[in-house]
Amino acid sequence: MAGVEEMVRNKQVVLKHFVVGEPKETDMEFRVGKASLRIPEGVEGAILVKNLYLSCDPYMRGRMREYYESYIPPFQPGSVIEGFGVAKVVDSTNPKFSVGDYIVGLTGWEEYSVIVRTEQLRKIETLDVPLSYHVGLLGMPGFTAYVGFYEICAPKKGDYFFVSAASGAVGQLVGQLAKLHGCYVVGSAGSAKKVDLLKNKLGFDEAFNYKEEPDLTDALKRYFPKGIDIYFDNVGGAMLDAALTNMRVHGRVAICGMVSQHSISDPKGISNLYTLVMKRVRMQGFIQSDYLHLHPEFLKTIVSFYKQGKIVYIEDMNEGLENGPAAFVGLFSGKNVGKQIVRVAQE
Amino acid sequence: MAGVEEMVRNKQVVLKHFVVGEPKETDMEFRVGKASLRIPEGVEGAILVKNLYLSCDPYMRGRMREYYESYIPPFQPGSVIEGFGVAKVVDSTNPKFSVGDYIVGLTGWEEYSVIVRTEQLRKIETLDVPLSYHVGLLGMPGFTAYVGFYEICAPKKGDYFFVSAASGAVGQLVGQLAKLHGCYVVGSAGSAKKVDLLKNKLGFDEAFNYKEEPDLTDALKRYFPKGIDIYFDNVGGAMLDAALTNMRVHGRVAICGMVSQHSISDPKGISNLYTLVMKRVRMQGFIQSDYLHLHPEFLKTIVSFYKQGKIVYIEDMNEGLENGPAAFVGLFSGKNVGKQIVRVAQE
Repeated sequence: MAGVEEMVRNKQVVLKHFVVGEPKETDMEFRVGKASLRIPEGVEGAILVKNLYLSCDPYMRGRMREYYESYIPPFQPGSVIEGFGVAKVVDSTNPKFSVGDYIVGLTGWEEYSVIVRTEQLRKIETLDVPLSYHVGLLGMPGFTAYVGFYEICAPKKGDYFFVSAASGAVGQLVGQLAKLHGCYVVGSAGSAKKVDLLKNKLGFDEAFNYKEEPDLTDALKRYFPKGIDIYFDNVGGAMLDAALTNMRVHGRVAICGMVSQHSISDPKGISNLYTLVMKRVRMQGFIQSDYLHLHPEFLKTIVSFYKQGKIVYIEDMNEGLENGPAAFVGLFSGKNVGKQIVRVAQE
Repeated sequence: MAGVEEMVRNKQVVLKHFVVGEPKETDMEFRVGKASLRIPEGVEGAILVKNLYLSCDPYMRGRMREYYESYIPPFQPGSVIEGFGVAKVVDSTNPKFSVGDYIVGLTGWEEYSVIVRTEQLRKIETLDVPLSYHVGLLGMPGFTAYVGFYEICAPKKGDYFFVSAASGAVGQLVGQLAKLHGCYVVGSAGSAKKVDLLKNKLGFDEAFNYKEEPDLTDALKRYFPKGIDIYFDNVGGAMLDAALTNMRVHGRVAICGMVSQHSISDPKGISNLYTLVMKRVRMQGFIQSDYLHLHPEFLKTIVSFYKQGKIVYIEDMNEGLENGPAAFVGLFSGKNVGKQIVRVAQE
């Protein structure tokens, strides 16, 4: 076989430079290179994949700056961006993966990737749900919602539950889990269309467009006249401040999405932390990767809920790697409706 | 007995008006009235006490503003200020208390008080420690330290532990409990004298004068090169922000004293909450009164530690009710060294 090396086109998205402020399409570069369809000789334990679906996640913004103290290192300027994806194995020198397998895990923003560090890849066994769901409902965002809800929120039946960015990848599942648990659920989102989805498709009790509220504290008082027991925070900033003043005694705040805001939000801080004492509130940051022991139970539970029709899932699918940077950048202005995915190739 | 009513002088401290900004002595008024030494006829279940020691606590600031959503209602302008105190029963129509008993609980800032709501009063049984300790080491501040440390901080041997306002009523006990638990303990305080006490009398590993630190974040990096596992926050504001950036993964922040800052601290908010996610930090407000079931075990433990010489306790005793307002106001500029007490009368 050696010597006969099949070369194919390999489109790629590369980080041009570390990003300042809100990410722009011009912070990334689209490039067309070539890839071999064979793993280079001597590279053991690796797989070569054809990428099918790439996930656009806000945490990726955190990897676009030169900051090494996070739980995950930064991207390197000039190199291909990395993210969660669903891919098909094309070549393998790793006994755990065979040609034809579908995998989910960290891969490159390109058509073909060689993945050497395979420890965190997962072979997809559940093939009777759409493949792309494995980076959303059944992927990192879904697991974030699951862990955040059950492990951090300490939910009780009848709790008043508020979630921001409620139609997003994490928010839509969190809200539905809260409904299934017997909570009264209100979500905030940034457009009339999203509010409509929350109320009429995702089964939220109430939803509102935060962009149309002159005073977020007042808005929350209106939707929660008795206060909020649980706030699942996907945005930080002014919404967090407003939610804090509306918390009930012994309330809980799960802090989820704030990483994406670090260094891009306005520098105005959170002013209402005195509520933590007044109302004896617990506020807790978390990361899904601390809870990997719960992953099997998560998959089982959510697949079962989905197949029984107890939860629905909304994707925003962009076609083609060329549109990847725009799709990613759109996350930060709320352009996406539902979980933002980029389809790189047809299955 | 009726008809022969003994009247005595009754000095009082009265709130003049709701307080704006930092409390001033002129927000209070010293008044000399008269009191009967008998409970008025028909008032059942009450006690009349001679107040001996009054406790100056920062939370009292919160009762000096017109805010009804707190866990405790505001003082009323024109009325005597209330606070924790140690007093001797002079007359009683309550079968649970006899003349001559010493009690601790909420009483008036005056020489003699009639207390009708006696549910939260406690008869002092431990008479072989100084009586005044029952509003400090063995009172609300001590119980706050105990509950905060054992119930909120989730301490482990070897944890890096930081406490602010470390020589204060709560801080001094928290730091010593952390030392006894095997933590590495650093405290901050506002004068060289306090720093000296922390290091040489209270057994802290390190201590620093925050007023001499141009950058609190740098100071904490110096004292905690590996980061902070537990921050017991008695102050909020800039110190909380600086501590947040220095937290270790899975760190815990117990929020204690911030109530006192509400409406008096500068409006600059807390900017470093992204650490909650980055480092998966839990931040929790609490109030000792939620944990009253632990009170007997608290008293037993702390009395035992104290008698064994395992902990020491530092009081700042002001003489005379006339000096009460100055003593209270001094809390907010850190004038007191140790727990601030006002002695109203000799035992």
